[in-house]
Amino acid sequence: MGKQVINKEVTNKEENYSKWYNDLVVKAGLAESSAVRGCMVIKPYGYAIWEKMKAILDKMFKETGHQNAYFPLFIPKSFFSKEAEHVAGFAKECAVVTHHRLMNNPDGDGVVVDPSAKLEEELIVRPTSETIIWNTYKNWIKSYRDLPILCNQWANVVRWEMRTRLFLRTTEFLWQEGHTAHATSQEAIEETQRMVDVYAKFVREYMAIPVVIGHKSPNERFAGALDTLCIEAMMQDGKALQAGTSHFLGQNFAKAFDVKYANKKGELEYVWATSWGVSTRLIGALIMAHSDDNGLVLPPELAPIQVVMVPIYKGEEGLDAVVEYFNVVADQLKKENISIKIDTRDYIRTGYKFAEWELKGVPIRIVAGPRDMENGTFEIARRDNSTKEIVSKDNVVEYIKNLLTDIQKNIYKKAYDFRANNTRKVDTWEEFKVEIEKGGFLLCHWDGTPETEEKIKQETKATIRCIPMDSFIVKEEGKCVYSGKPSKQRVIFARSY
Amino acid sequence: MGKQVINKEVTNKEENYSKWYNDLVVKAGLAESSAVRGCMVIKPYGYAIWEKMKAILDKMFKETGHQNAYFPLFIPKSFFSKEAEHVAGFAKECAVVTHHRLMNNPDGDGVVVDPSAKLEEELIVRPTSETIIWNTYKNWIKSYRDLPILCNQWANVVRWEMRTRLFLRTTEFLWQEGHTAHATSQEAIEETQRMVDVYAKFVREYMAIPVVIGHKSPNERFAGALDTLCIEAMMQDGKALQAGTSHFLGQNFAKAFDVKYANKKGELEYVWATSWGVSTRLIGALIMAHSDDNGLVLPPELAPIQVVMVPIYKGEEGLDAVVEYFNVVADQLKKENISIKIDTRDYIRTGYKFAEWELKGVPIRIVAGPRDMENGTFEIARRDNSTKEIVSKDNVVEYIKNLLTDIQKNIYKKAYDFRANNTRKVDTWEEFKVEIEKGGFLLCHWDGTPETEEKIKQETKATIRCIPMDSFIVKEEGKCVYSGKPSKQRVIFARSY
Repeated sequence: MGKQVINKEVTNKEENYSKWYNDLVVKAGLAESSAVRGCMVIKPYGYAIWEKMKAILDKMFKETGHQNAYFPLFIPKSFFSKEAEHVAGFAKECAVVTHHRLMNNPDGDGVVVDPSAKLEEELIVRPTSETIIWNTYKNWIKSYRDLPILCNQWANVVRWEMRTRLFLRTTEFLWQEGHTAHATSQEAIEETQRMVDVYAKFVREYMAIPVVIGHKSPNERFAGALDTLCIEAMMQDGKALQAGTSHFLGQNFAKAFDVKYANKKGELEYVWATSWGVSTRLIGALIMAHSDDNGLVLPPELAPIQVVMVPIYKGEEGLDAVVEYFNVVADQLKKENISIKIDTRDYIRTGYKFAEWELKGVPIRIVAGPRDMENGTFEIARRDNSTKEIVSKDNVVEYIKNLLTDIQKNIYKKAYDFRANNTRKVDTWEEFKVEIEKGGFLLCHWDGTPETEEKIKQETKATIRCIPMDSFIVKEEGKCVYSGKPSKQRVIFARSY
Repeated sequence: MGKQVINKEVTNKEENYSKWYNDLVVKAGLAESSAVRGCMVIKPYGYAIWEKMKAILDKMFKETGHQNAYFPLFIPKSFFSKEAEHVAGFAKECAVVTHHRLMNNPDGDGVVVDPSAKLEEELIVRPTSETIIWNTYKNWIKSYRDLPILCNQWANVVRWEMRTRLFLRTTEFLWQEGHTAHATSQEAIEETQRMVDVYAKFVREYMAIPVVIGHKSPNERFAGALDTLCIEAMMQDGKALQAGTSHFLGQNFAKAFDVKYANKKGELEYVWATSWGVSTRLIGALIMAHSDDNGLVLPPELAPIQVVMVPIYKGEEGLDAVVEYFNVVADQLKKENISIKIDTRDYIRTGYKFAEWELKGVPIRIVAGPRDMENGTFEIARRDNSTKEIVSKDNVVEYIKNLLTDIQKNIYKKAYDFRANNTRKVDTWEEFKVEIEKGGFLLCHWDGTPETEEKIKQETKATIRCIPMDSFIVKEEGKCVYSGKPSKQRVIFARSY
């Protein structure tokens, strides 16, 4: 068979951003659609990114005192009715299990649902686990000494989405959901803040994406929460993407599931709750924040392969010699915990290899051939800005280590600058309608009412992404961009994923 | 409030093994039943064991060339009908999703299933993923260059069990399932063997449980497999427990899902398959293999807490002094990657602390008080045989390191000796009926027919656990213990979980 051709043709980003995104996900081998409507298959290369994310987040959760546990996939239907707002928010589009048996089709081939195996109460595949977890916590909590409970769960959840997109919105997705129980409101509020800070640190330092931390407006809050904190990122098309949320749930779930503790005086009080989560959606954010028309651009901290080595050679012996030359450096790099791939495939042309690793977003490519071996050098190319340098084999390990750090910083800076260039203050409604079409974050005064937010959404599809708490705080008196009523702080409006 | 009382009363093992087991699981805080029939909550202490297991197994899988991926939770009903044996084995007792929406109850409170949201084709919550994975592999495999595919998935699965027991048999459980695709039968057979060997190594070296590797008899094979390899362990009540399986699936799934590859000559051939899995059931095995009437006995390699330190003191200052004394050693042990817990709770009596950590199976307990501080010593007690020693603080780190190794070995040896003492050759049917009541493994000749195996099962509840491949191989001519027909090798009969 001849040399294989890698289909690297990716739609141009400017031409069709949405198709560009989907092409990248599929052609870089991250994920694909499955036979089940709205559910994706996460392929090994995509899953390797998720594993890296999980390992880092899990360590951060444990360092902040959390433990992992596992709660049932199914939730009895009646549980959803117990928290009034929660039922409205979550118990609608979901997967409902009604039977527990199939039987041979009496009228023909295959299997059919056995009508005699109908469940007494239907089970819902969890869209989120507050209800089943608080029903469990009821038995774990008697006294203040049982508090706080700081649990996290890594799990799959299902929300029956009408329109799905790989990673960004799928019927089934993977996530973690933290669920904590506290003796006081103050402690729960602190936890809510602590975890949104953990998320912000993770997305900034590892995903190389700048985020704003802020409060959600009441319209955008989690169903059942008193306050939702979030981190909001800007994608390269100027749209916002909510990358993580942390909810202060007050005593709502404790009341719904009757969870009380005896305080030091022996009096019974309802328990205070938080919940917080991030999901495989983060992979979608990672792709959209950094990638280009040649493919993925992965930050070194999350790249499954950090360095790919491509040999230039003639004949099998030639290959062996270059691979040997690579191996010396590869062994040294592995000792530094740098992940390496030597591409020894002899049935793919060098040009296609370059294109494939570019498509897959490997941060550094090292090339060497007979001439490099003579000179004791390597050609080192970086994915983020496509520059190349010739580096002596004596310095190559140190060079690569520094370069990985550089690339990580540079990717962050690029995203940071992009966001800065696409964030602007807008003070009039006329201006708003023009500016929102250009994308980006609009810093505007808002009168604080859900009605105004709703009207703005209806007219422009823009929502309040957050009321900023760190970046972009503009505390100044002003007038609502829509209603003209007084306002004390600017908020971020944007169209969003 | 007064000192808390730990309810450590565990049913006596001899009295009621099954209740003893359940008491341990619940009272040691490993898991508990949930509001959903047959589904358990895995509590933080139990989940920490699973995390340790996962980390070790995952490393072993990667070292043998496997990658992780993730496939959908749901499987279209029609997929089960494609592989004839598979449908009989798996598509019966399962969770069936028939609808995708709830709505407010028009006749009253709460929510009901929206009849207009009926799915065109029902979805089954995966009981195992061969069908959805082979339907996916179809698109991944074109040529011999795409092979082998070596994927593993960590996931939850659901089998609607009528009688459930925590960890051992639950409706939902956590597991890993490896699914590999190969160009040749030989390669697939080698993979099947490789993975059962990985399982055996894991269970022996980390879980400290001896296992026999063997072939399943045709009656006990996985639905759709040509050969099933397994590891079988013996529990302390003499019953067998299947701890892991590795299946050679031949071309059955490739044929069912039409998965062909072009070989080097360009001819199309069906692909060869394996699948292999272990589950949270292993935690049940871990408990039943080693624990005693005082609680869990955890092997150091899998214990979430390897060393607990309990201070003896008077007053708050006294506590601070002992904790400081502990901290010096604790810091040294942490550097050696030994997990430590200092029990500083001032509201629990020392005796109860001892009992609680015993119940939780912590391998080593270190106690120190004012006298030890004067003498520069620690009292070190081991969980596995309850012996104690006084050790100087200068040697304590080295002592602990060696002791952990010792305990791991000793636990294995105990289980190994127990198995040896409960394995015997049986040659007549009269003897068989007596001996099977005593528990343990019976090494017997068998005529190789499913009919004989079935009759033995009906009369004694014993099944062929495996046809041994490593331990207990007895290749000798003989006569079937039941039918008297000729046999060339003894097999293992036992009652099992």
